[in-house]
Order: sequence, then structure tokens, then C-alpha cells
Amino acid sequence: MSAFDLNPPRGTRDLVGREAKVFMWLFEEFKKTAEARGFEPIITPTIEYSRLFELKSGEEIKRTMYVFEDKGGRLIALRPEVTASVVRAYLRALRGEPKPIRLYYIAQCFRYDEPQRARYREFWQGGLEVIGDPDVNADVAAAEAASRFLEGIGLEHYYAVGNVAPYRAFMGAMGVPSDDQDHILHLIDKGRVEDAVKFAGEKYGTRLAELLKKLISTKLEDLERLVEEHGELLGAFRSHVESEVERTVAFIEVLSELGYRATYDPLLVRGLAYYTGLIFEYKTPRLDVSIGGGGRYDGLTSVYREGVFEYSTGLALGIDRIALALGESTGAFGGASKVLVITTHNVPLSSPYKIARRIADLGFSVSVHRSDDIGKALRLANRLNVKLVVIYGRRELERQSVILKDMATGTQYEFKIDDERLLEMLRRSA
Amino acid sequence: MSAFDLNPPRGTRDLVGREAKVFMWLFEEFKKTAEARGFEPIITPTIEYSRLFELKSGEEIKRTMYVFEDKGGRLIALRPEVTASVVRAYLRALRGEPKPIRLYYIAQCFRYDEPQRARYREFWQGGLEVIGDPDVNADVAAAEAASRFLEGIGLEHYYAVGNVAPYRAFMGAMGVPSDDQDHILHLIDKGRVEDAVKFAGEKYGTRLAELLKKLISTKLEDLERLVEEHGELLGAFRSHVESEVERTVAFIEVLSELGYRATYDPLLVRGLAYYTGLIFEYKTPRLDVSIGGGGRYDGLTSVYREGVFEYSTGLALGIDRIALALGESTGAFGGASKVLVITTHNVPLSSPYKIARRIADLGFSVSVHRSDDIGKALRLANRLNVKLVVIYGRRELERQSVILKDMATGTQYEFKIDDERLLEMLRRSA
Repeated sequence: MSAFDLNPPRGTRDLVGREAKVFMWLFEEFKKTAEARGFEPIITPTIEYSRLFELKSGEEIKRTMYVFEDKGGRLIALRPEVTASVVRAYLRALRGEPKPIRLYYIAQCFRYDEPQRARYREFWQGGLEVIGDPDVNADVAAAEAASRFLEGIGLEHYYAVGNVAPYRAFMGAMGVPSDDQDHILHLIDKGRVEDAVKFAGEKYGTRLAELLKKLISTKLEDLERLVEEHGELLGAFRSHVESEVERTVAFIEVLSELGYRATYDPLLVRGLAYYTGLIFEYKTPRLDVSIGGGGRYDGLTSVYREGVFEYSTGLALGIDRIALALGESTGAFGGASKVLVITTHNVPLSSPYKIARRIADLGFSVSVHRSDDIGKALRLANRLNVKLVVIYGRRELERQSVILKDMATGTQYEFKIDDERLLEMLRRSA
Repeated sequence: MSAFDLNPPRGTRDLVGREAKVFMWLFEEFKKTAEARGFEPIITPTIEYSRLFELKSGEEIKRTMYVFEDKGGRLIALRPEVTASVVRAYLRALRGEPKPIRLYYIAQCFRYDEPQRARYREFWQGGLEVIGDPDVNADVAAAEAASRFLEGIGLEHYYAVGNVAPYRAFMGAMGVPSDDQDHILHLIDKGRVEDAVKFAGEKYGTRLAELLKKLISTKLEDLERLVEEHGELLGAFRSHVESEVERTVAFIEVLSELGYRATYDPLLVRGLAYYTGLIFEYKTPRLDVSIGGGGRYDGLTSVYREGVFEYSTGLALGIDRIALALGESTGAFGGASKVLVITTHNVPLSSPYKIARRIADLGFSVSVHRSDDIGKALRLANRLNVKLVVIYGRRELERQSVILKDMATGTQYEFKIDDERLLEMLRRSA
């Protein structure tokens, strides 16, 4: 028995004390900001049939997914991300709703990877999705909400913006099947640019290798010209690339006008295979890894149901990384002031609870503590950083009164139990 | 592709639309009520080593647990309940904190059982735990918070109260090992009282069978006498039973004084094997299954770490069942009023976002919709039940104004863009 391992499974954590409070606060702020911008909640299952993610989530996710067989022999996965579930739920239950549909979620996800700083096997994501809107307004709607959330919690952030459409269009035009497209983008995402170029060159010839090299080094303002120069090669792919380049320019422009820093990075491609155009990541000077990201995933719907094409865009923020980046500097975060109602065994226990209720309604965090040793109870109040103590013992019961004690000054006041001045004084100290 | 199954795994659900909002509202109300009563959040992992639950959760939980091997060959379980994790986290991280420790959680749990009405394979629990307090005050603290939560959301409820201590004491005194005690209680919990008596009689003699029959039919006011009559048989077990009978009486009394209905039910034993004394369930006239329950689990700590005995008590409410019981009668539930800012493609997109921000700060749920067909946009506003629309197109840009339109009356007002009366009028319509 003594050998029982008290640690949670490797890569997972117990969040307690201040850390748990910070997480709950981040969940609440995310919810509040999303709802203030017209996003509605969606809660999908933590477990899904693994096939949902295998179809279009990308190499990295497939490699690190928790998969197991249930007792009925079906392959179940712990969700590695939530967008695939949202798309599935949309197809099943939300297709009849007026579009665009704006959804938000706060959900834990799982990846069986080597745990390291800021990378856990179970981690929390706050996500926003807009389904049914091709306009860059949909991308801005999600991004602006995320930025307001980050501003609200006091975390400095900026955007790295990219676009996978030029890569996919050039590769598509040269006959590279989507599996190999995914693989090449996966290598670029992992920083293995040379391997990507080499793989492309060996398998599809030097022209593709040269084009990839150009895409990797072309600035946003030159991207339009590059597309124009290769108009003939791009053929049917051209108009999509053009509109995605436009989208990228507009996205950066609107964010800048709203006061956010956003810069184009041609090397940004992101690890998820379902992105089709604009992509972006959230960075903070306080952490060396991104704290979130997103992009366009137009047509992911049709992967799960033939013939249903929806324009879609979305993003997810990593709550664990945000908490880590905030560290101790959680300025806007605070809890309710604590009040301890101390009572003794020789009074009916329901009475202090009736007093506590009235105090809780004022916005305090109130506990009833029963102890016949008032001195000891006051020492506990000190250890708990309680500001105000209410004492209700036998003497008070008989006098129909309560004692209010300010722990900082030691001052005590006695009030009749239904004297409104008790609540007034508490309200003033809140 | 067209054969792709859009349903979530059997026994799990997609919560969307009004249902998702109700769940989010219940989570928030539970959090608020718990925090107003001095409970602090704890977030434990969704996955645990399966051994944690195998030690003391009871037959039913073991039988229905999702268990799988991770890539490192360790047995992992999806948590079937949260108390075992809280106790583990307490032993690892919270033992040094001033006691009693009050914790709350909101977490999904998993049981691989035959899905049926009000019984899902993935379900949500809101839980409260008090560690380090033998006083009935700890039981009342958790129960009062739960009752206030249920009152706050408008769900009528009452308590069924029992106690496993007399059962365990009589069985212990007659030499029944704890495995068989668990099994007998499990049978009683499943309503198989006769099987329980038969099993006890066959294995441990008619005296135990007779005693069980007595316990099953004894009223709370006669329980003390029953214990007294068998004082010699109970021996060392006697004082514990006596204090538990006292606790049960006090618990019911305090709850009644606080205005809640609580009645003793000798047949209530509950399915979890870790309960040691007082137990209770929450019932509502609106549903034929309980909506939650809890009880004393003194010393569960020592199952995981030898030599550490802590008094503990707690409860969990089933959020899914509560949502089901509430049905459409969610009086206190409401969302923010919706505002749609309609803009056109010939104005800079950042401008309507700047307007939307100011409106969101007033407590509205605001989306920016971009469409060059204002009539179509207004029809969307109607379908979305939007009360107020703000129009900001090219004409407004040039006139430095916005139009505010009341969708119910059709009335329109034009304001200069920085006219405070715009926000005032919105504030009044909120």
C-alpha cells in the first residue's frame, strides 16, 4: 500500500490552489469574451471514434493520439483537438441553423507525446469556430475575440500570419497528391525546410523544389506577383490563391487598425492537415512557444459528408500555456474576500448558516467553522487570510447578537442579529 | 465517405444550442455557489492510473470502467468519479494546508454501461469535498451549498438520508471481511435486499441475517436503542456507530431548520464502497432517479497512503440529470441580448469592430455581419432573434454616423458615431 503512486499519469497534472483558480478564471474570461461577441457554446464528447481524427488531422496528431478499443470492439480516441468534433456535430445537428454559425468551446485535449515544458499530455483549449462564411470578416471575428480575451487577462500578444493556399495550389497544379502535400507541409512546420525541398525535388522534379524555395522566401507584398507570373501553371488553382492572398492582406490590415501587431511569415504552415488558406499563430514575448493558432478550413465538412461544402474558420488558444506565460502577473485576477463565521457546539448549527447566507449574498466567500476554542478558530482565520470574522456563540445566541471582527485591526463590533448595519459594514469592507 | 458515422460514440452526446447554454449556465451557477461558501477549485486529470479506482470504488464502478493500456504499457482509466482523484491530489499536494480543506470541481466522468434515459457513458458532475473535519458541520457545509445551488436554478429537491456505519459495524463485529461487506451493501443498493440477507445468512449464519433484516426496517429514532441492545456484540465498533447515528440525526435536523426536506431511509446504502457513515441522495419530484448524492468517506486517505487518516465528506451532483429535470423550466437562465452590427464591403472592416467593442462592453452579445444586401442581413437578424441592429455602411461612414434599428418596432435612429446617446439608448434597451 505504501508504494501507491500518488502522482497523476505522466504528462498530466493536478491543478490546485492558486493555479486552479487561475484556470477557472481563464475559462470564465474566455466564455465571457466569446459570448459578448455572439459565439455560442458547444460541448462535444471527450471521446470520439478514432476515425474522425484519422481522416484529416495530420501526421503529428495521428502519431500521438490516445486510441483504445472499447468493450464493443470499436476504436475510441481521446480527442486530440476539438475542431473535427465541432464539424461532425455541425453536420449532424446544426446544418439547418442560420449561417454564419459562431461556436466556442473550452475543453481538455490529449496527446501522447514526450512531456516537456509547456507541453502536457492533457491540456486545455479555448476555441472559436465560424461556419458558413467565406468573408475575411469571419476570420477577423474569431481573431478579434481571441485578442480581446488576451488583452482582458493582461497578456501581451502578437500574430504570425501565413497561408497554405499558395503551397497547396502550386503542389496541386504540379500533380502532387494531398498525402504528399501534407507531408511536405508537415516537414516545413517542423522547421525541416531543406528536407521538404529535397523530398519535393526528388519525387516531383526540380521545378517544384525551386517553387517551394521561392514561396518560402517571398514577402506578402510580392506574393501576388509570384502568382501572376505562374498564372498558366496554376490554372484552375489561381483564383483561390488570389483570394487567399487578398484575405491575408486584409486580415493583417484589419488587425493592425484594431491595434494588434500581425506580421506575415511565409514559413508558417501549422501542423494540422485540414487548413486550406489563411493560418495564424499567437505569440507572446513571455514564452518561446505559440499560445494558440488557427486558420481557414473550408470544406472540412465534405471530408465527413460528401457533397456538403462549408466555408469555415477558427482558432484555439492553449489555456495551460497562457497560464504559464502569465505566471504571477495576473493583474485582473482576484477572488471574493473571505469571511469566516465562527460558531460553537452549544448553539443550533442552522443559525450561523442563516447568517452566512446573508453574507454570501453580498458577494463574499463565507464558510461556517464550528469550534469551542475561539482562539484556535481565529488563528485558522489568520492562516486562511480571512479579513473579517463573524462570531456567533452561546453568548451571542442569548443576546440575539453577532460579533464582527476585523482581522487586520483587531477591532470588534457587536450588532443585533437583524441589524442592517452589520451587512452595511460588511459591504463597505468588501 | 458517405458512410461516415456522424454520431458521437454510443452513450455520449453533442450538446448544442439551448442545451449547451443550459449546461454552461449550470457550471457557472455551481462554481458561483461553491465559491460563495469558501470552496476552492481543484482540476484533476481526466485520465488516471486505473489502480486508483480499483482499490476502493466498488463493484459497479470496476465493472463499468473504461480502461486501456497506454503506449508505455500502464493501465489508464477514464475517471468514473472524481473523489478518488481529489484524495490522491490532497495526499500529494495539499496535506500542509490549514484544515478543513474545502474543494469543488466540475468534471466529466465515464462509465461504460448500457445507455438509457438519464444515464450516459460520459456525464458531468459538480462536486464538493471537505477534508479534515469530523464535525457534522462539514457534511452540512457541502449539503447546504448543494441545496442553495439547486434552489438558485429553481429545481425542487429533497434528501434521502442513510448511514452505512450500523451495517458495517454489525458485519465487522461478526467477522465479515470488508469485501463481503461491500458485496452485501452492493446488493442492498441494487434493491436486491433478499439476496443480501440470503448471502449473509448462508455465509455467516442466521444471526447476521436477522440483524440485517432489523437494520433494514429500523427507523432512525429506534436506531440508538438497537445499538444499545447489541452493545456487547458491537464492542469496539459501538462508539463509531453511536456518533454516526448522532450525526445522522443532527444532519437531518439542521437541514430541516434551513428549510430543506430530509428523511431517513434505512435502505439507502449507495454504490460506492468508500463510504463509512452518513450518506445521502438528492431527489426531485421531476425525475425518477437521484440527481446526486454523497456522504462520509473518513479514512479513504489511508487506502492510498498508509498511516494518513483524514476525516472526509463530500457529494456530487449529476449535471446531466439536473438539466433533464429542469427541462424547459429554466426560469433563472437567460443570455445577453443580441446586437448585430451590419456593415458593407465598401467601408474599412475595423470600424464596425470598434463600434461593436463599445456595445459589447455594455453587456450585449454583439456580432459584426458584413453584407452588401442590407435587406438580407436584416432577415438574418430576425432569424437570430436579434433585438437591435446597428447599421454602418458607406453612407454612414461619410456622414460619420450609425443607424440604430429596433427590430421589434422597426423604428430607426441616426446618431453621430461618438454620440453618447447611442450607448445610452442601447443601455436602456438591454
